[in-house]
Amino acid sequence: MTDDADLRVAVLGVGMMGAYHAATVTSRVKGARVTVVNDFVATTADRVAARTPGARVVPDPFEAIRADDVDAVIIASPGKVHHEQVLACLDRQIPVLCEKPLTTQATTSYEVVQAEAEVGRSLVQVGFMRRFDPEYVQLRALIASGDLGNPLLMHCIHRNPTVPAHFDSQMMIEDSVVHEVDAIRFLLGEEVAAVTVIKPTATALAPEGFHDPMLVVLETVSGRVVTDEIFVRTGVGYEVRTEVVGENGSATIGLDQSVLTKTVGGRWGGRITAKFLERFDTAYHVELQRWVDAARAGTIDGPGAWDGYAASAVCAAGVRAVESGRREPVQLEPRPAGVPTPALGVSSP
Amino acid sequence: MTDDADLRVAVLGVGMMGAYHAATVTSRVKGARVTVVNDFVATTADRVAARTPGARVVPDPFEAIRADDVDAVIIASPGKVHHEQVLACLDRQIPVLCEKPLTTQATTSYEVVQAEAEVGRSLVQVGFMRRFDPEYVQLRALIASGDLGNPLLMHCIHRNPTVPAHFDSQMMIEDSVVHEVDAIRFLLGEEVAAVTVIKPTATALAPEGFHDPMLVVLETVSGRVVTDEIFVRTGVGYEVRTEVVGENGSATIGLDQSVLTKTVGGRWGGRITAKFLERFDTAYHVELQRWVDAARAGTIDGPGAWDGYAASAVCAAGVRAVESGRREPVQLEPRPAGVPTPALGVSSP
Amino acid sequence: MTDDADLRVAVLGVGMMGAYHAATVTSRVKGARVTVVNDFVATTADRVAARTPGARVVPDPFEAIRADDVDAVIIASPGKVHHEQVLACLDRQIPVLCEKPLTTQATTSYEVVQAEAEVGRSLVQVGFMRRFDPEYVQLRALIASGDLGNPLLMHCIHRNPTVPAHFDSQMMIEDSVVHEVDAIRFLLGEEVAAVTVIKPTATALAPEGFHDPMLVVLETVSGRVVTDEIFVRTGVGYEVRTEVVGENGSATIGLDQSVLTKTVGGRWGGRITAKFLERFDTAYHVELQRWVDAARAGTIDGPGAWDGYAASAVCAAGVRAVESGRREPVQLEPRPAGVPTPALGVSSP
Amino acid sequence: MTDDADLRVAVLGVGMMGAYHAATVTSRVKGARVTVVNDFVATTADRVAARTPGARVVPDPFEAIRADDVDAVIIASPGKVHHEQVLACLDRQIPVLCEKPLTTQATTSYEVVQAEAEVGRSLVQVGFMRRFDPEYVQLRALIASGDLGNPLLMHCIHRNPTVPAHFDSQMMIEDSVVHEVDAIRFLLGEEVAAVTVIKPTATALAPEGFHDPMLVVLETVSGRVVTDEIFVRTGVGYEVRTEVVGENGSATIGLDQSVLTKTVGGRWGGRITAKFLERFDTAYHVELQRWVDAARAGTIDGPGAWDGYAASAVCAAGVRAVESGRREPVQLEPRPAGVPTPALGVSSP
Repeated sequence: MTDDADLRVAVLGVGMMGAYHAATVTSRVKGARVTVVNDFVATTADRVAARTPGARVVPDPFEAIRADDVDAVIIASPGKVHHEQVLACLDRQIPVLCEKPLTTQATTSYEVVQAEAEVGRSLVQVGFMRRFDPEYVQLRALIASGDLGNPLLMHCIHRNPTVPAHFDSQMMIEDSVVHEVDAIRFLLGEEVAAVTVIKPTATALAPEGFHDPMLVVLETVSGRVVTDEIFVRTGVGYEVRTEVVGENGSATIGLDQSVLTKTVGGRWGGRITAKFLERFDTAYHVELQRWVDAARAGTIDGPGAWDGYAASAVCAAGVRAVESGRREPVQLEPRPAGVPTPALGVSSP
Repeated sequence: MTDDADLRVAVLGVGMMGAYHAATVTSRVKGARVTVVNDFVATTADRVAARTPGARVVPDPFEAIRADDVDAVIIASPGKVHHEQVLACLDRQIPVLCEKPLTTQATTSYEVVQAEAEVGRSLVQVGFMRRFDPEYVQLRALIASGDLGNPLLMHCIHRNPTVPAHFDSQMMIEDSVVHEVDAIRFLLGEEVAAVTVIKPTATALAPEGFHDPMLVVLETVSGRVVTDEIFVRTGVGYEVRTEVVGENGSATIGLDQSVLTKTVGGRWGGRITAKFLERFDTAYHVELQRWVDAARAGTIDGPGAWDGYAASAVCAAGVRAVESGRREPVQLEPRPAGVPTPALGVSSP
Repeated sequence: MTDDADLRVAVLGVGMMGAYHAATVTSRVKGARVTVVNDFVATTADRVAARTPGARVVPDPFEAIRADDVDAVIIASPGKVHHEQVLACLDRQIPVLCEKPLTTQATTSYEVVQAEAEVGRSLVQVGFMRRFDPEYVQLRALIASGDLGNPLLMHCIHRNPTVPAHFDSQMMIEDSVVHEVDAIRFLLGEEVAAVTVIKPTATALAPEGFHDPMLVVLETVSGRVVTDEIFVRTGVGYEVRTEVVGENGSATIGLDQSVLTKTVGGRWGGRITAKFLERFDTAYHVELQRWVDAARAGTIDGPGAWDGYAASAVCAAGVRAVESGRREPVQLEPRPAGVPTPALGVSSP
Repeated sequence: MTDDADLRVAVLGVGMMGAYHAATVTSRVKGARVTVVNDFVATTADRVAARTPGARVVPDPFEAIRADDVDAVIIASPGKVHHEQVLACLDRQIPVLCEKPLTTQATTSYEVVQAEAEVGRSLVQVGFMRRFDPEYVQLRALIASGDLGNPLLMHCIHRNPTVPAHFDSQMMIEDSVVHEVDAIRFLLGEEVAAVTVIKPTATALAPEGFHDPMLVVLETVSGRVVTDEIFVRTGVGYEVRTEVVGENGSATIGLDQSVLTKTVGGRWGGRITAKFLERFDTAYHVELQRWVDAARAGTIDGPGAWDGYAASAVCAAGVRAVESGRREPVQLEPRPAGVPTPALGVSSP
């Protein structure tokens, strides 16, 4: 591509997230356009292509990755095909933005890390969009400033109003807690060392035998402790809240209180953001713009393959912990030369 | 009375407020008991006396004031009889706590000021209970500390959920705005010099021809400006909020947000205090305890006759301003020797 | 221009605001690029052009407006040259986004309204960016939903931490209050009928003879009342807050409380947005994207020439009211055929 | 005592808490007076007696309990002497208000339960004052109303600005966490079944080898889970916060935000209550008034001996859990006939 030209993007998987990314690139992201749309359901691909000016459908994802009019790839397909799709992008050495999970297994995620290391250039970005949310960015800067002192504890809340009936403990870990895992690594700048999962009495709204809510306790390598309440059938709204407690103060984000109303019947308050796309729309928008800006220069600008691998490894331990009821250690493979260590939010003790 | 003995209190007028005071003295105020209950409705007096151990009914208020077993008087009778009841207490030289208004006319209020000045001792306290509310006390201390700099503006909100149908503009000024008038004098430590009343489109819930809400603009002697929204048929709750804006910062009280809930349907927030007795219960309790403590020593501990007179004079100007649509100046009679000037919250410019 | 091509934009005046717009269009707005930069200070134009890939300097603004590689114009030059620059754009019948004020006089603003009416197409958008702020949008939707009932009162706060020394009452009206004037029209959907300005004791931080803060009281045609505190030397932060009080409830925006900290020394709270570009960055971004999208179709998408004229007329009354100390009526010229009436937020009484 | 007479109270131990109780009874509690003051430090007893009109010093606590002019006893002496002092009160069959802990051992606490059961009347109240705090009362009522649905999780925060240097993990459990233990039992209406303690990296402000903060995870008999952060050297303020998460909503108390300031330098926020006596002054006052009212009728009105015993048993498990690093079950002795089960806040699953 020339300097002036738009980045030509293929979007693999155009269900809710992929269609959202295609629309965002088309209408709000500078310097990129969607040229190829792919989905394993043909009608879905056709529908999204029809409302994406300049885009054509390519039924085979690997053909899409190799197409001449494709400079970079957004992967929003089902997690189980991520592995080979990401490897195909690496094979062609083009930038990719892969929705989480990077792959569905820690082992295959590590293969991606190794494959990228062999290429010798950062090409794989993982869609941990919270890193682009203004509040997370401010919180990280506050921690890094040292004003809170050494952060010792974090308390996270992740609540969904509702989920599909089959959303079980494993999905709660891999689809929801995974975001907190990355947030911990982003905010504290170190790896997670162990996971324990405690299963309270379940809500009557969960199917028989399901564990909802759960309390996940994560410990970092240096000994910091994080509590994470994951509760996905609250009926209330989409609530993501994080409190970091440092030696010299604490900070909370996700209070999500903007318009304040007083209403007949004597209530003060406001509306809780109902959906994650509404809560994190700005984050997704910024993520895409910055990824496009970087991809035009042949690289990425955000969490990379190692971040995807580390999250996978922690989630795998989390899934084991749901079963065992015990504290499960997290084992990470060696970091290949050239892969940066997590940026430290603040000097650890 | 001896040092050990309880202060024996007569309560004149035992409608809602008087009955509340009688119950508070009986159950929660140290060093006092109600010995006499009076009301112009005999059955009301009987009912309250029946639930006030040790209290008897005295049908004539002046007989009650003069009774041997009465050391001090609480006046919660209709405003139009306050004048002669307060004078009768002054005549006997016993402490009195008079619900606002001190009297219904600025002229008669000034007569009380003069009568008390002749006695030469502070005996008349007016029931501006907000001076005992913890938040008002903190706000006054904050202003006095100088941390906000010179206070230049105040914004007040006074909203009731509902009022009786006949509650008109004059009552809005004399029963509701009067509290803000005293709050201004308490917080800013100076007199009000002029009042303007602006009448927006009225709520459809107000009777034809009534002005509800109104916007009252008050100016102090030194030139500070206060806005006061008075809106008494909101259907929402009892909201009293005050923001003071100084040269170096601002402060707001009355946010009234304690228990925070998240509820099905996606709302955050809480309950607005429904009634003024709930909102200001602590203030009334502290007011009574401190008045009793002072009365046992033969004096008062709170806003005095001059404060009642000044509020009456400002409200009279306010009532004129509703009619005239113009800025109405407040004229105050000379302050008798020995009557303290308002305590200044902060040095004025 | 063809469907595919970017909108080619000339930016007239590239001081702080114009440079911000040029940078935003260049880096974050889809479908547009800056081709021409103009400023009456040559070095300023050169500096901005140098960091705007693809842009050249055109020293004469009218030559810029007429340039072949210009499809639309952003005017961020000093207010006094807006009149002739906007007319030149209308002459060429290309879309323009003009920073407020539309012009410096109500009469010249009305000339723009008439000139546009003659063209017969909406081409002039005025930079009242608050209409694109998510909270203002939500508040307007809430009012329009009828949930608050008929809105009777509004309370606005507009505080700046600091301004240049020469920022006087007229500038406070024309540069700051003007935003509230448009917000009133946007939220309540009707014109302002009268303005009164009350001048409290001034802050010691204001130059001798300056009136800061001021209290502006605005009345709408239907009789609603708005208070606006304008205080531009608070030393605190950039605070813009609006409360709308309706028959059935109230709503407040601008609370500006996101990250909540607890800090050593015993304080809870957070940081107030320091600058208006930070507070309204999203609003400006959305404003530009939507204007570009509309301009590519040959029109605008936001407040138009009439809105600019109406704001000018209200501000002119406001400036008179500062002088006179009286209530000053607002007189509007007839609305040309085809100019839409303000969209009503809710049915008026 | 006769109906009219004040309850004559002996206060055993008049360090900070006992002196506070003596002053509160003397100045603010209706129907009681302090007649006897006792402390193992003679000068302390003398100093408090000197400012307590009508009180004399009795050097021997058991003599104080048996004194003719003592109708009821407040025990605020060191925990290690509570056991025999409470038993002496039971021996005389007079009401007692005992500061926590009831006794220092679960076994001795159970002896008190049994001794009271033999008397056959509720005489022993334990000073869990939070049960009288307006917010806890509201939260319990909200849970009991069923509006939150079945409460599944609780998150508690207990932070002190500073503690004496020797304040170790055991004291953190027994002096601080004990309040949350009672709050759990009060709010959820069931017993605690197990305790786990997780020890994060300690604050640099803690002495070498101390565990501060700690994360305590408590499980109830029915399977609800409670997280409790206990952090006693934050340097910030006294923060006690509780969130209950139910099937249909959540509720948080302890936000502790009243006066809201905006200050030079661009901060919004307010002051965190610095000391527990300030935070819970109302709770202590109400606790004492209600205990006095009940004691005059020969009984108590608040948490009883069983509540003290249950808290002791949970804390003992907590202290074991600090050591073991494991989940420690709580074993409770049988509840004697006539001892009420915990009032259920809401029907358990």
